[in-house]
Amino acid sequence: MTARSALPIGVFDSGIGGLTVVRALQQQLPYERILYFGDTARVPYGVKSSDTIRQYSLQIVDFLLEQQVKLLIVACNTMAAVAAEAIRARTTVPVLDVIEAGVEVAAATTRTGRIGVIGTLTTISSGAYEQGVRRRHAKSQIVSQACPMFVPLVEEGWLDHPVTRLTAREYLAPLLAADVDTLVLGCTHYPLLQPMLQDVVGPAVTLVDSAETTASRARALLTDLGLLNPAAIDPLHRVVVTDVPQRFRAIGERFLGKPLPEIELVQW
Amino acid sequence: MTARSALPIGVFDSGIGGLTVVRALQQQLPYERILYFGDTARVPYGVKSSDTIRQYSLQIVDFLLEQQVKLLIVACNTMAAVAAEAIRARTTVPVLDVIEAGVEVAAATTRTGRIGVIGTLTTISSGAYEQGVRRRHAKSQIVSQACPMFVPLVEEGWLDHPVTRLTAREYLAPLLAADVDTLVLGCTHYPLLQPMLQDVVGPAVTLVDSAETTASRARALLTDLGLLNPAAIDPLHRVVVTDVPQRFRAIGERFLGKPLPEIELVQW
Repeated sequence: MTARSALPIGVFDSGIGGLTVVRALQQQLPYERILYFGDTARVPYGVKSSDTIRQYSLQIVDFLLEQQVKLLIVACNTMAAVAAEAIRARTTVPVLDVIEAGVEVAAATTRTGRIGVIGTLTTISSGAYEQGVRRRHAKSQIVSQACPMFVPLVEEGWLDHPVTRLTAREYLAPLLAADVDTLVLGCTHYPLLQPMLQDVVGPAVTLVDSAETTASRARALLTDLGLLNPAAIDPLHRVVVTDVPQRFRAIGERFLGKPLPEIELVQW
Repeated sequence: MTARSALPIGVFDSGIGGLTVVRALQQQLPYERILYFGDTARVPYGVKSSDTIRQYSLQIVDFLLEQQVKLLIVACNTMAAVAAEAIRARTTVPVLDVIEAGVEVAAATTRTGRIGVIGTLTTISSGAYEQGVRRRHAKSQIVSQACPMFVPLVEEGWLDHPVTRLTAREYLAPLLAADVDTLVLGCTHYPLLQPMLQDVVGPAVTLVDSAETTASRARALLTDLGLLNPAAIDPLHRVVVTDVPQRFRAIGERFLGKPLPEIELVQW
């Protein structure tokens, strides 16, 4: 029993955006070990076909399962949108994903039932958020918008730059015209734009960031399954990536909010 | 002899930007067959490490050599910047690359010797353009600037959008302050921004697009080697990619300037 509860949580993303989920996990579950996998050689996934995303996702899942994890967290909206089912079919290890978490909060937050969702091209065209929200809130009206420029803008570090603000105003215009009261940040890069986005949409719109909710769900699930790590020591964390590109550390630490541990490299 | 001259030219890029080189080749060498390879599953290369770029480049070269080509054209500045040497060491088939071509025109164009170069992060930090220009024009002064936002802006189709213009003014300010008279578009995506960029830099700066020069060099080289395809018939072209992402056809046809043939998919 204790053996399994001492295993790490496997968190994975197409790149480093999923470190925003790790950050929330470390705050809510300070005794848990985390094994983070970022497919930095093949990032971004948001513009790839669904078949390729599923194939890559399962390759990552198999790697994490070999390393022994007690919980898998899909910290990438694009993978969650098109590969969550295939991932759950692959293993008996429990699987949480950021879309499930985002949908839960959005449905609980909206008063008018008009919910905006922003994400990558693939996430938005998958319709995963619409389907998830409709299951919980049948009368809701979802207005979604792909925002392909937001990921490169975050990686450029232009978090509150005139270019980013102008881009946001253009992307968000249809959502504001539809009078949404809730806006789901459907990509792990977007929380870094949160202050600027809140400014553009105004105080009447509630922004939903799935990282916090994913961490709360992880805590609840591990508690229910008796899998919380009991040891009150500083846990070891691992970060595994498929490439160490330029500016990796600087961008990663922006997401994580603190220094990164040593980086391990696997090459496929 | 005729057997070898009838072989296709292998043109490759990390994605679909290299189709701007194909477009120039088709204009200057209308009887040549072209086999285009775009690594669309792993695009973009411009933010990956040099080791990964070299490994991927050689995998593509091996694939094209198996298909039998008479000439290889590296239609990607990032691959040319870090993998050209490794590629030339791999084969006796002649190899042209877009950086060599761009350097040649830039050195011939500048009057003041002050040359600006823009490209991806990896291309710019490789210093490949500086080294190439200095070999031809020892006293030249190179001012280079990575422009990571330009590729996503082109793929979003915002070719002359206020966001793109604002981004260009920011990136190009140091080059204009250095009073360059020549600006090398060191990425195959950038020719699509040419009218807007010309407007931002003003008429005193000459823009250098390496696609046209690469095609001229290919014609000269095939002539010298006696490898021009003599058959005056409409040649077959092939387009091979590693993924068919959303909007692939629309974006590809924007680069090529005409409809794409049927797409072949290989999965690695």
